[in-house]
Order: sequence, then C-alpha cells, then structure tokens
Amino acid sequence: MIGRMTSQPPRPTLIADAAIALIAERGLRGLTHRAVDEAAGLPTGSTSNLARTRAALLELALTRIAELESAGFLDPALMPGSPRELLAQVAADGLHQALTSGRTLTVARIELALEAARRPELRDVYDRLGARFLDVAALLLARCGSPEPAADARRLIRWCDGVLFNATAGSGHGHPPTSAELQDDVARYLTALLARPE
Amino acid sequence: MIGRMTSQPPRPTLIADAAIALIAERGLRGLTHRAVDEAAGLPTGSTSNLARTRAALLELALTRIAELESAGFLDPALMPGSPRELLAQVAADGLHQALTSGRTLTVARIELALEAARRPELRDVYDRLGARFLDVAALLLARCGSPEPAADARRLIRWCDGVLFNATAGSGHGHPPTSAELQDDVARYLTALLARPE
Repeated sequence: MIGRMTSQPPRPTLIADAAIALIAERGLRGLTHRAVDEAAGLPTGSTSNLARTRAALLELALTRIAELESAGFLDPALMPGSPRELLAQVAADGLHQALTSGRTLTVARIELALEAARRPELRDVYDRLGARFLDVAALLLARCGSPEPAADARRLIRWCDGVLFNATAGSGHGHPPTSAELQDDVARYLTALLARPE
Repeated sequence: MIGRMTSQPPRPTLIADAAIALIAERGLRGLTHRAVDEAAGLPTGSTSNLARTRAALLELALTRIAELESAGFLDPALMPGSPRELLAQVAADGLHQALTSGRTLTVARIELALEAARRPELRDVYDRLGARFLDVAALLLARCGSPEPAADARRLIRWCDGVLFNATAGSGHGHPPTSAELQDDVARYLTALLARPE
C-alpha cells in the first residue's frame, strides 16, 4: 500500500501526462476532461477539479511538456569539447531524443503550438516556455562566435522545428532521420549558420 | 443571374475552400459537416452529400490544398538564371507566399499533416501530394550538382517545413521572416546543403 502510494506520481502530474498522451494520440479533438479522467484512471470530475476550463487544461499540458523537455537539458558549462562541438551535440541529441523517447511530447507540443495561434493566453505560455530554448541556443551560438546570436538562435530553432514536424507529421513521417544523419545535418547547418560572407 | 452563376465556383470547390478556412481558423476540432455547410453558405446536408464521411471531407480539403499550392509552381525550364539562383528564387518565393497570401492553406496543411499521422488513408493522400514537391526540389537540386538530390530534397523540405511551422504556430509566431530574410536564409541554407566536404 505504501509502495503503491509512493510510486504513484502526484495527481496533477498524472492528469497532465494523460492529457499529453491523448493530444498526441487523438489530436486536440480527442481531448476532453472526461477522456483525461478515464485515461488517467481517476474518478470522473478529477480533471475538472484541477483544471476547470479547457484553457486551463491546455495550459497544464503545455507547462508539463516544457518541464519534461527542459529536464533533459544539461548544463553546457559542465560538458566537454569546443563550443561548436558542444552545440552540435546538444542539438543532435535533443532532436534524436525528441523523435524517439520524446515523440509523444513532440507531437503534443506541435498540436498545442497550433492551438496557441488561436488562443492568446496559451500563446503567452508557449512563448514564455519557448524563450528558454531560444536563450540556451543564443548562449551557445554566442560562444561559437555568432555576431547575432539571438537571430541565429531563431534560425536554428526554425530548422529544428522543421526536422521535428517533418519526421512526426510531414513528408518524412515513417522514415525519420537516424542519429548519424542528424549529427551530419546539424554539423552542416551550423557551418552554414556561422559562416559569414564579408 | 448569369453573372452570379458564372462567378460562383463549383460546389465541390466552395465546400473544400470552406473546410480549409475552418480548419485554419478553428483547428480540426472546429471542422464538422454542418459547420462547412454554414461557412460555405449552402443548405444543410450539402457537405454530407459530397463527402459522406469525415475521412472523405479531410481528403477533399487536403487535395484542394495541394491543387492550390502547386498552382503557384512555375515551369523551372521557363525561368531565367543559373540553377542555383533559380532554386533559391523558387524556395524563397514559395515560402514568402505560403506565409502571406497562402497562410490559411499553410496552417490547414500543417493541421492535416498531424491528422494524417493518425489516419493511414489520409497519410497516403498527403504523401502522394508531398511527393510532387519533393520531385521538383530533387530536379532542381540535381541541376545544381547535388550528388544525392533525393536526400537533399528531403533535407530542403524539412527546413522549409520548419520555416512555415515556426512562423505560423511556433516561437516565430507574430514575427515571421521578411522576404529579404527568407532570401538570405535560403541562400545560406543552399550553400550548406550543396557544399560537400571531401
């Protein structure tokens, strides 16, 4: 009994994770408070008690995605190698993970990004959370000698978004790039990004 | 009366266009046969008569998107400039158009791509239509001297998907790249793509 209690995540986590899985599997059309109760194995009404409105439920899911995605971040200061090698490694590993063990999070994040274009309050959450990724990218790009790290970070994130969208939903669906391909593509993209014609 | 009749598009086109606009505006959750009837200004049941099932309605919308998107294609053989300039121009113009006048089509296409990951029959339509874009890209890349035009076409489409997703739904929402930025980014990306370390 104690074992079961301690191994069970807190209820808000259970609910958020069930919502994320539903969004990834069925799209936002499949997300209802009732469906989340069922998927989480909780009594009817549990999700409504935690997140009364649909907007609150969407925000709960998106916040949890950002928490899980940024949990994988390592402190760049602790990692070996040149700034360029480090950035290439962080990007390739992050993409690989987002397309394998993190695939559900990736698909749900893309769904919520589209919804955020229609809901200003969700947009704020998405942008606040997205800013973390942009900041890390800009920091690493500055160390690589980028003369405009903020703009280059936006370019890099755009490219990463393309890799993730294409492999999960676009024309690359069913044949995502391998880890080796990602490393090769990242290295090549960074070369292009950091080469400045004078 | 004759004027009205001749200026009105055929009913399947009216219905497909209304479905696309609804998907872009409200997401797939907002797409119902009834809502399409209303948006198209047609009697209740018109959409069901044309596309009985939800799957048929989704396919109708996606086929129309591909028709409209590929209508903008020019015959590369008729365009001036070197293959490299031509490819850069086609890509930058295509992206710019997809983010301005074609924004509704772009958002609806992204929504339908996600749904295609959940519906094998829609996947087939998406892949068949996507293959046209890959083929044009591969043809142009081969003329630019790419040693592996099919793989490079997949890379280029991934990058384009990222530009489109990021600017319509991702962290670039609200501040899409300008035409000049797109041209600069395309040129830089093609340099990276076509430079082969030996």
